[in-house]
Amino acid sequence: MHRTKVRVVEDALDANNTIARANRDDFDHHGVKVVNFMSAPGAGKTTLLERVLPQLEGIRVGVLEGDVQGSMDADRLAGLHVPVTQINTDPGFGGECHLDANMVRSAVPSLPLEEIDLLVIENVGNLVCPAEFRVGEDARVMVCSVTEGEDKPLKYPLMFRTCELVLINKIDLLPHLEFDLGKLLYNLDAVHPGVQRMMVSARTGEGIGEWRNWLSTLAARAEAPA
Amino acid sequence: MHRTKVRVVEDALDANNTIARANRDDFDHHGVKVVNFMSAPGAGKTTLLERVLPQLEGIRVGVLEGDVQGSMDADRLAGLHVPVTQINTDPGFGGECHLDANMVRSAVPSLPLEEIDLLVIENVGNLVCPAEFRVGEDARVMVCSVTEGEDKPLKYPLMFRTCELVLINKIDLLPHLEFDLGKLLYNLDAVHPGVQRMMVSARTGEGIGEWRNWLSTLAARAEAPA
Repeated sequence: MHRTKVRVVEDALDANNTIARANRDDFDHHGVKVVNFMSAPGAGKTTLLERVLPQLEGIRVGVLEGDVQGSMDADRLAGLHVPVTQINTDPGFGGECHLDANMVRSAVPSLPLEEIDLLVIENVGNLVCPAEFRVGEDARVMVCSVTEGEDKPLKYPLMFRTCELVLINKIDLLPHLEFDLGKLLYNLDAVHPGVQRMMVSARTGEGIGEWRNWLSTLAARAEAPA
Repeated sequence: MHRTKVRVVEDALDANNTIARANRDDFDHHGVKVVNFMSAPGAGKTTLLERVLPQLEGIRVGVLEGDVQGSMDADRLAGLHVPVTQINTDPGFGGECHLDANMVRSAVPSLPLEEIDLLVIENVGNLVCPAEFRVGEDARVMVCSVTEGEDKPLKYPLMFRTCELVLINKIDLLPHLEFDLGKLLYNLDAVHPGVQRMMVSARTGEGIGEWRNWLSTLAARAEAPA
């Protein structure tokens, strides 16, 4: 009985991974690098994009916005003159709390893949389910705000464990918080030893240059010969 | 086809509601009032409980802790000498991002219903799915931290719409944020006109007395005759 349950979960994730590979093939075909960008609600994903996208000189960026409903973040980013495509998980998928490979698949025909080098997929604000579904990305970046407390890596380990980069945001607020940055980093290394991390502030701009360089390097990365 | 899909969703929620009613009957049988306590990760649910529970004089409180894994919050609250029961959604349910009625049902035999007047169910940190599943509660309370931005009611409307009380937390940080409280309240009233709200700070204690009184009133509320 237990064995059967595990099989079902594996099958569902297998199906997701099959579709994620199809997305991946389409992205590769057009030479587009893809970031799956995740965090809790209000950690600062959209504001960080508003900060970094104008600095990505020479790289053509597109954004795929995932939200339960509405297009507030897409509207904010459209002002930066980057192509933004919106997916709402509410009407078509029953109010899903994450993007999966098939939702991204449904958006692929709307993406200007011929015209971009880098696609940032802003996932639904949630630290649980987005971590469980690959969507065809090259890298996963998550934002962790210092206002959320030091314990979040231990409470949501899959999210922290499956990221290539952790942006620790709102560090301008550190003087006003009872927050132990060393403790957060200790907890981060406990679940994902040595994962790359950057201290950033979308408000003051601190650390944004470092993140810009990371994205530039990703976008310029040549694929190893198959 | 579309019609079929809607039916399936309704059936799943019907099953949840049937089990929620069974929970409700058990709680009623023991005269226990129940709060479903929800928020995004890091909004301050556990800290607010640490603040308010010791002030609830004359009311016997129990806590049911929902987490993907671990028992960090339960450990914190156990220090207050209230009975705390832990549900992990990871091993038994596949890493669920919310509590549903059946998960709570599985915990009912472990709850000391004879010995408490008020049960607080601390849900998994998430603004999407917890709102979709009734668990047999009398009231839903959500925490919204001012660090999360003014737009959250518009982005996660179901959560804000299905609550009886919204605690707006971390107001001690207002002087350090570019945050428009009027705009948050405007957005809140747009999705849930007139919903009761309290400005609180788990750190300074501001507003905690008002919240304590709200919980006391709920715990003392007599059921209307059937």
